[in-house]
Amino acid sequence: MTDAATSMRLKLPIACFILQIILIILFGVLVQYDHETDAKAWHNQSHSDYDNDFYFRYPSFQDVHVMIFIGFGFLMTFLQRYGFSSVGFNFLVAAFSLQWATLMQGFFHGMHGGKIHIGVESMINADFCTGAVLISFGAVLGKTSPIQLLVMAIFEVTLFAVNEFILLSALGAKDAGGSMTIHTFGAYFGLMVTRVLYRPNLNKSKHRNSSVYHSDLFAMIGTIYLWIFWPSFNSAVTAHGDDQHRTAMNTYYSLAACTLSTYGMSALTAHNGKLDMVHIQNAALAGGVAAGTAGEMMLTPYGSMIVGFLAGIVSVLGFKFLSPVLEDKLKIQDTCGIHNLHGMPGVLGAIVGAVTAAVATTDVYGKGMGDVFPDVASGDIEASFQGVRQVISLAVTLGIALLGGLIVGFILKLPIFGAPPDSICYEDSIYWEVPGDEEDHGEQLTAVTSAEVEKLNA
Amino acid sequence: MTDAATSMRLKLPIACFILQIILIILFGVLVQYDHETDAKAWHNQSHSDYDNDFYFRYPSFQDVHVMIFIGFGFLMTFLQRYGFSSVGFNFLVAAFSLQWATLMQGFFHGMHGGKIHIGVESMINADFCTGAVLISFGAVLGKTSPIQLLVMAIFEVTLFAVNEFILLSALGAKDAGGSMTIHTFGAYFGLMVTRVLYRPNLNKSKHRNSSVYHSDLFAMIGTIYLWIFWPSFNSAVTAHGDDQHRTAMNTYYSLAACTLSTYGMSALTAHNGKLDMVHIQNAALAGGVAAGTAGEMMLTPYGSMIVGFLAGIVSVLGFKFLSPVLEDKLKIQDTCGIHNLHGMPGVLGAIVGAVTAAVATTDVYGKGMGDVFPDVASGDIEASFQGVRQVISLAVTLGIALLGGLIVGFILKLPIFGAPPDSICYEDSIYWEVPGDEEDHGEQLTAVTSAEVEKLNA
Amino acid sequence: MTDAATSMRLKLPIACFILQIILIILFGVLVQYDHETDAKAWHNQSHSDYDNDFYFRYPSFQDVHVMIFIGFGFLMTFLQRYGFSSVGFNFLVAAFSLQWATLMQGFFHGMHGGKIHIGVESMINADFCTGAVLISFGAVLGKTSPIQLLVMAIFEVTLFAVNEFILLSALGAKDAGGSMTIHTFGAYFGLMVTRVLYRPNLNKSKHRNSSVYHSDLFAMIGTIYLWIFWPSFNSAVTAHGDDQHRTAMNTYYSLAACTLSTYGMSALTAHNGKLDMVHIQNAALAGGVAAGTAGEMMLTPYGSMIVGFLAGIVSVLGFKFLSPVLEDKLKIQDTCGIHNLHGMPGVLGAIVGAVTAAVATTDVYGKGMGDVFPDVASGDIEASFQGVRQVISLAVTLGIALLGGLIVGFILKLPIFGAPPDSICYEDSIYWEVPGDEEDHGEQLTAVTSAEVEKLNA
Repeated sequence: MTDAATSMRLKLPIACFILQIILIILFGVLVQYDHETDAKAWHNQSHSDYDNDFYFRYPSFQDVHVMIFIGFGFLMTFLQRYGFSSVGFNFLVAAFSLQWATLMQGFFHGMHGGKIHIGVESMINADFCTGAVLISFGAVLGKTSPIQLLVMAIFEVTLFAVNEFILLSALGAKDAGGSMTIHTFGAYFGLMVTRVLYRPNLNKSKHRNSSVYHSDLFAMIGTIYLWIFWPSFNSAVTAHGDDQHRTAMNTYYSLAACTLSTYGMSALTAHNGKLDMVHIQNAALAGGVAAGTAGEMMLTPYGSMIVGFLAGIVSVLGFKFLSPVLEDKLKIQDTCGIHNLHGMPGVLGAIVGAVTAAVATTDVYGKGMGDVFPDVASGDIEASFQGVRQVISLAVTLGIALLGGLIVGFILKLPIFGAPPDSICYEDSIYWEVPGDEEDHGEQLTAVTSAEVEKLNA
Repeated sequence: MTDAATSMRLKLPIACFILQIILIILFGVLVQYDHETDAKAWHNQSHSDYDNDFYFRYPSFQDVHVMIFIGFGFLMTFLQRYGFSSVGFNFLVAAFSLQWATLMQGFFHGMHGGKIHIGVESMINADFCTGAVLISFGAVLGKTSPIQLLVMAIFEVTLFAVNEFILLSALGAKDAGGSMTIHTFGAYFGLMVTRVLYRPNLNKSKHRNSSVYHSDLFAMIGTIYLWIFWPSFNSAVTAHGDDQHRTAMNTYYSLAACTLSTYGMSALTAHNGKLDMVHIQNAALAGGVAAGTAGEMMLTPYGSMIVGFLAGIVSVLGFKFLSPVLEDKLKIQDTCGIHNLHGMPGVLGAIVGAVTAAVATTDVYGKGMGDVFPDVASGDIEASFQGVRQVISLAVTLGIALLGGLIVGFILKLPIFGAPPDSICYEDSIYWEVPGDEEDHGEQLTAVTSAEVEKLNA
Repeated sequence: MTDAATSMRLKLPIACFILQIILIILFGVLVQYDHETDAKAWHNQSHSDYDNDFYFRYPSFQDVHVMIFIGFGFLMTFLQRYGFSSVGFNFLVAAFSLQWATLMQGFFHGMHGGKIHIGVESMINADFCTGAVLISFGAVLGKTSPIQLLVMAIFEVTLFAVNEFILLSALGAKDAGGSMTIHTFGAYFGLMVTRVLYRPNLNKSKHRNSSVYHSDLFAMIGTIYLWIFWPSFNSAVTAHGDDQHRTAMNTYYSLAACTLSTYGMSALTAHNGKLDMVHIQNAALAGGVAAGTAGEMMLTPYGSMIVGFLAGIVSVLGFKFLSPVLEDKLKIQDTCGIHNLHGMPGVLGAIVGAVTAAVATTDVYGKGMGDVFPDVASGDIEASFQGVRQVISLAVTLGIALLGGLIVGFILKLPIFGAPPDSICYEDSIYWEVPGDEEDHGEQLTAVTSAEVEKLNA
C-alpha cells in the first residue's frame, strides 16, 4: 500500500517544519503576553493575584480543550480502520490550527500598538476556531491526506477570523457559543469542500466506511465528553457573573432534552425499532450546538429544553432522510454527518438567537442588558434590530463558508497533496504503520471475539 | 432477535416524547433562574461578577458530571456484549433523571414564592440524585429494557427527593457526599428491585454475563475517572472554604488507602493469588463511598485512611463471599455488585459519620462548627444527639429504599415494558443495531487477537 | 502460568497491608490539617471563605490527578497483553506513592512544630512525586512484579524528596513543572534500575513487546490527556496571578509546536514515510517536559514554541536512533522509551531554564521578579548566578537519580519479589485473572476483526 503519490516521507515533514517555523517567526515579531500574563505589566497594577482572569476562565478553557482533542478526536474513531488517523490527524490539525488562529484572530481583533496580546481568553478563542476546522474535517474524514487537512486549516482559520470579525465586531452580533461562527461556518465550509472533492468511485472503499463494535465504544468516549463539557464551551467567553452561569445552565438543559428526543427519534426511525449508534453519538449533541447563540440570553430553562428537543429531532431526521439525499443528489459525501450535527442545528441556533435577541426587554434583563446586548442597553438600537443583526450574521456566515469552501475545495484538488485513491479511503495503513490485531505466540491461532457471529448466523 | 414484545419502535419514542414534553411544561410553569443566573436579579445587587457562585461550584460540578456520564457509563461496559447499552442507557437515564430531579428536589427544598429557583448548586444536586438511579441501574444491568429504566427513574428520583428532604431538612442530618442519600439509598433500592425481578432461568444468558479483555479496559476508564473525581463529588455542595477543601482531601486519602487494601484483599482471596479485575474496578472506589458522610467533618487524614482501608476490605469480601450467597439464597441477582461497592460501604460511611458527629467538640471545630453542625454550634443540641440523628437517618434511608424498591420492582414486572427474555440478557443487539466485529474485505478472513488462547490451551 | 515464585497470594497482601498500616500510623502521629483545611484554624482568621486556596489550586490539582491516573495509566496500555497491569499497577503504585510522598515531602519542607501540615498544595506535590515514580515504571514496564514496583516506589519517593529539597530549598533553584525534579530524576532513576535489571534473554517475550490496533487507541487516551492537561501540570504550584497564567500559556504553545515537529520527524524517519504511533504517543508530549522549568519565566510565546519544536525533534530522533543503541550497547531495556520522552527533554528543559534564568532582567520582569526569582529581586544574587544554580541542580539531580537507581536496582534484584521469568514478560496473565477474548455461544466460532489481514496478504 505504499505509493510515491501518497507517501508522506517528504511532504509531511516539509509542511510541518515550514509551517511551524513561519509560526515561530510571526509569533516572535507580532505576539506579546497580555497584561495578565506579563510579569511586569501585571505587577504594575494594583490588584490581588486572585483577580487574574486565569481563575475565571482557565477551568472553562480546559473543558473546551478536552472537547477539541478528546471529544472531536475520539468521536471520529467510529470508523473500523481509521482510528489512528481520526485521533491522530485531529491532534495534528488542531495543534497547528490553534497557533495559526492565535495570529489570525489577534490580527483581526487583538492588536495593541502593532502587537497581538494573548492570554487565556485568546487561548479559548483559538480552540474555538480550531473547533470549526475539526467540524469540516468530519465531512472529509477518511478521504484526505494530512497535507490536505493542513492546507484546509490554513485557509479555513483565516476565513473563520474574517467571518468572526464581521459578525462580532462589524455587525455587533452575539454568538458566545458559536452556533454561527463555529458550527454553521465549519459545517457549510466542510460540506462545500467535500462537494468539490466528490469521489464518484468512493464505493470501492465502502466496506471500510462503517464501524465495528469496539470502534463505536471509542467514539462514545468522544460523544460523552463533548456532551459533558458543552456547557463550558458555550459559556467560556461570555461576560463574567450571571452570564457565564446562565449560559452553562441553559446548555445543560438543552442537551438533556436533546438526548431524550434523540433516543425517541432513533427508535422511531431506525431499522426494526432498534437504536442506531450514529444517532446517539451525534444527534444527542445537537442541543449544545443549537444553544450556542441564545445560551447567554434569557432563554429560560424551559426555552432551552424546547431548543434542545427540536435540535435532536432535526438531527436524527437529517441522518435518516437527508444525508442519503445529499450524497445521491447533491454529491455531498459527508463522512460524519456534520450537516446533521453542526449544520442544521447551527442554523437553528442562529435563528433561535435572533428571535431571543429581538424580544429582549429591560423588564427581563434589568441592568444585565449591558452584558448581553450592550448596544440595546446604551439605547443605540432597539432589541428588534439586534435580531436583524443576528439574521444578517447568519446569512454572511453561510455566504463566506460556502464560497470559501468552494475555493478551498478546488485548491485541495491539486494532485500534489497525497490524497488517498478511491480504493484505500477510510484506511489507516496508507499513512500509518499499523500493527496487526494478531498476536504471535508461535502456535496455531484460533478464532475469537465473535459474539455477533451468533447474530449473523441467526 | 427482533420481537414485538421487546421492540422499542413505539414504546421508547412515546416514553421519551411524553416525558420530555411533561418536563418542558413543568419547567415552564415552575422553574426560574435563581438570583445568580438571572440577569436582572444578579445586577440588582451590589457585588463583583467574580463573586458569582459559578466560580466556586462549577469546576466541582463538571467533575461530578464526568463521574455520572463517563464514570458510571463506562464502569458498566465490563460486560462483553453490553457496552452500547451500558454507556447508552446510562446516558439516556441520566439525561432524564437530572431534569426530573431538578423538579423533585426543587419541590421539596428549593421553592421561592411558588417557583423553583435553579443554579449551579441545583445542577450538582440533580446530578447527585441521578447518581443514585445509576447505582440501582447497576443491579439490574443487562436484564431490563430502557423503558423499565425510565420508569424506575421516575419513581426513584421522587423517593430520593423525599428521603433527602427527611434527612437533611426534617432530621437535620449531614450527608454532603451522600453515603446515605445516594449510595445506601441507591444500592438498597436497586437490590430490592432486582430481587422482585428475580429471573430463575437467568443462567440461559450466563455466558454473556462476563467480561472480555478489551471490555475490562473500557470499564477501567470508568473506574479511574470515578476514583479521580470522587474528592470533588464529596465536596461539591459542602460549605465554602475549609469545609470544601477538607472534604476533598479526606476523600483523596480515603481512596488511596482503599486502593491498597483492595489490591491486598484481591490477591489474598482470588483464584491462584491473581488479581481480579472485578475487585479493582469496584472495591477500590469504596473509600469514596465510605467518606461520603464524614468527609466534611474533622475526620483527620489518618481517620480517612482507616475508613478507606476498611471499606476496601469489606467490599472485596463482599464480592468474594457475600454476592454468591445473595444470589443463591436471597435470589438477588446483582449484576455489578452494587451491594459491595455502594451498599455496605454506604452503611459503613453512615456509621462513621454518626460516630464522628457524636464526638465533635468546639475544641476541635472552633468557629467552624457552624458550617458543619449548625445546630450544635447554636447550642440547640449536643453533638451526641447529632450522632443519633445520623443513625436515625440511616434507618430511614434503608426503610424508604427497601420499601420503595419493593413497590417499584412490582411495577417494573408489568409485562408491557419490553423486558428482554431470559435467554437474551446482557446482549446489546436486542435494543441496538450492532455492527459486526467482522470487517469485509471480500476475501477469506483468518483468525486474530487470541493471545489468551495460549493460556486456555496451557 | 501459576508459579509459586511469582504468585502474589501472600506477597501482595502482606506488602499492601503492612505499608498501609505504617502509613496510617505515621499519618496519625505526624500529619495535621493545614490552616486552610482545619475548621478551627481557618475560622480563627479574618477572611472570606472564597479566599481559600482550594479555589485557586484545586482545578489544577484535578487536571494533574487525571494525568497521573488516566494519562500515565493509559499511555502504557499500548502493549498488546499488558493493559490490566499498565493501568492497574499504575493505579496501585500511584495510590501508595501519593501517601508516602505526603510524608517524605512534608518531612523535608512542610514541618510546623513537629507536624506535617497538608492541604491542596501538598496534594499536588504528592501527585508530582508520584509522577516521577510512574516515569521510572515506564522503563521497567512488563518486566517487574507489583511488589518490585512498590519497593521501588518506597525508595524513589524518598530520594525524590531529598533531591527536591536540595534543589528548591538548599540551592534555591526554580523548577515549577519539574523538568529536573520530576522528569530528569524519574527518567535517569528508572533507566539505571532497568540497566541493573538487564535481562539478556528478554527476546523470549519479544513477541508480546508490541502493540495491537486497539491497544494503540487506548494508549492515545493517555497521550491526549497528558497533552491537554500539561499546562495545568506546569502551572499547578507556581505563584498565583500572572505566573500561573503565563506558565500555562507557555506550555500550551510549547506543546503545540512540539506536535508539529513530532509529526514531521516521524514521517521523515519512520518506515516508508508512514507515521509511527510510538512517536505520536510519546514525542508529542516532550514539549511539556521541556517547558517544565522555564515555563514560569518570561520565556515569551515564541521562545516556548522553539523549545517545544526542538523537544519533539530530539524525542523522535531518540526513539529512532538512540533507543536501539541504548539497548544493544548499554544494555538498557527501556520499555516505554522514557529516555526519549522524559530523559532528554527533561535535560533540555533544565538547560533552557538555566539560560532563561541567567538572562532575566528587571526591565522584563518588573516587580514580578519577586515571584519568579526572589533572590534576584532582593538583590542577594545576580540573575547569572541563578542560572548557575539551575545548572548545578541539573547535575545534582542526575547524580542522585543515577546513584539511587543503581542501588535500588540491586535491591529489586533480590529473588523474593516475584519478578516474572524472561519468557512471560509483558503478559497480564501472570498476575491477573484474564478473561478470554472469546465469547462462548455454544457454537462454532468463526474468525473476525482482521482488517489488516488484507494488508498482511498484500
